Amino acid sequence: MSPLSNELAEGVRRGDVRALARAISVVENGRPAAPALLAALFPYAGKSLVVGVTGPPGSGKSTLVDRLTAHLRRQGQKVGIVAVDPTSPFSGGAILGDRIRMQGHAADEGVFIRSMATRGHLGGLAAATGRVLTVLAASGKDVILVETVGVGQDEVEIMGTADVSVVVLVPGLGDEVQALKAGIMEIADVFVVNKADREGVDRVVAEIESMLSLASHEGQPPPQIVKTVATDDRGVDEVWAAVEAFRARSAGNGLLADRRRAQLRRQLEETLQDRLLTRAREAAFTPEELENQVDRLEARTVDPLAAAEEVMKRMGL
Amino acid sequence: MSPLSNELAEGVRRGDVRALARAISVVENGRPAAPALLAALFPYAGKSLVVGVTGPPGSGKSTLVDRLTAHLRRQGQKVGIVAVDPTSPFSGGAILGDRIRMQGHAADEGVFIRSMATRGHLGGLAAATGRVLTVLAASGKDVILVETVGVGQDEVEIMGTADVSVVVLVPGLGDEVQALKAGIMEIADVFVVNKADREGVDRVVAEIESMLSLASHEGQPPPQIVKTVATDDRGVDEVWAAVEAFRARSAGNGLLADRRRAQLRRQLEETLQDRLLTRAREAAFTPEELENQVDRLEARTVDPLAAAEEVMKRMGL
Repeated sequence: MSPLSNELAEGVRRGDVRALARAISVVENGRPAAPALLAALFPYAGKSLVVGVTGPPGSGKSTLVDRLTAHLRRQGQKVGIVAVDPTSPFSGGAILGDRIRMQGHAADEGVFIRSMATRGHLGGLAAATGRVLTVLAASGKDVILVETVGVGQDEVEIMGTADVSVVVLVPGLGDEVQALKAGIMEIADVFVVNKADREGVDRVVAEIESMLSLASHEGQPPPQIVKTVATDDRGVDEVWAAVEAFRARSAGNGLLADRRRAQLRRQLEETLQDRLLTRAREAAFTPEELENQVDRLEARTVDPLAAAEEVMKRMGL
Repeated sequence: MSPLSNELAEGVRRGDVRALARAISVVENGRPAAPALLAALFPYAGKSLVVGVTGPPGSGKSTLVDRLTAHLRRQGQKVGIVAVDPTSPFSGGAILGDRIRMQGHAADEGVFIRSMATRGHLGGLAAATGRVLTVLAASGKDVILVETVGVGQDEVEIMGTADVSVVVLVPGLGDEVQALKAGIMEIADVFVVNKADREGVDRVVAEIESMLSLASHEGQPPPQIVKTVATDDRGVDEVWAAVEAFRARSAGNGLLADRRRAQLRRQLEETLQDRLLTRAREAAFTPEELENQVDRLEARTVDPLAAAEEVMKRMGL
């Protein structure tokens, strides 16, 4: 390992905020120093509780994460927050609107907050999130909260990096958003119905219960449903109690260990895929060669599979 | 090629609906016959105009796609529709709610409609969409409409498979959804403001214009903004005219050719990545070996990079 990676890894281990910020940038963007840095930090990761928080836009996830953070800080726990934001594919900048509320924790050394853009990550967003989690965990955070906006495939995959998944819903969502819930309802370990002072809260709870009654929970008790008014700090302690209860149960029955194994398996496959493609580029797939192949595809004289097989032959495979 | 793939490819080329449905299942799910089938169809693809339609939930995309289809059928054009739906990660089934409206075209042989689930595709959703587009294009569709729900990274990537991207917005979206627009606004070639009989339509148009005034269009005219009431078929012809105008202009100035080259480049890289991982699995990465490596990761005695390098060494790389 280079002296630079070494110094950075040590800074992360000490919980140094500037080292942490730099290390996350290195692994998020897949810079050349990333593999060595991750290798140095990996032995110290795996001890944090990772909690995913997702739900449709406008459900108040950021406020809930903010209040959960305050709750955890009162218990003396060190907290990392990863907020995955929608991004402009051109500017690469994350939208920070909701993040501003989190500034209440900005002066607190026990809280580290990081926004991640959703675009341009080597190996995809979930893989990048996994790398960032390794760094945060190695820095000694007790709890890492991962907040995502939206309910698509990315979010489901990001939730796959969490030990416990919290899905936040609100009364009064339109029909199509209700339909979207089906995509995330099966990943929920805890449901939060936020803005519970609004009309329609009982209808949402009843809908969740009715969906849950149809699903198989493989011998597990069904997910808890907690009502909150996060802006008034109502129900936030109960959300954390439900998260803790799920963690304790899943640690006891092997589910947590299974999830963590699945995460490691995914990390290995993603790393392998990335290294193989890098090797292909180095060995047999120079930029000029790539353009030659694309010329032939454009002329439709070769198909993608035949072109790929040719590259592999040149790699000696 | 096996006789079966051959027969299937011929059926697709004839536009046979059952062959088309089977062939799409084969390539969508990455079945063993997929590579040979895609190789057989690839020479005949590339002639359809692919139009992506995206926007936030509730913006009326399905209705617009339905009306555009009717418009194209009146012109005698053959239409393929790919609707990318949010999915339960467990059941694998697509949510068909909005699709029901499309049944008006179900009896029309000139229209082929296919829903794609958002989960579990080899190489990711955009790659699977690209394979499905190859099949539909080879079957002789003049226009292929790709509809996606949502505004995340997946959608932006799927729009990367289109020749022309249409982004649908509506008056009265909440603030957070407005923020989401930034992620997709830069991929829009045509903006549609649907439900234009609602209050607030001029404000949405003004917001789009103000965003566009800040963006660089690299010498291109800014995207057209078309107001529609798709349920009443108002403005639908204008949407198509704007799509055609964009196509003509981008064909003239080389932009369309650049996009298609980028798509082919991506297809080649995805195919290569997929083949390399398959080879790794065959050569050095049996299920038992994978679990052994995961055991070591779990014990934190090895990190993912070191484990990946070991597999590559065994592949002879």
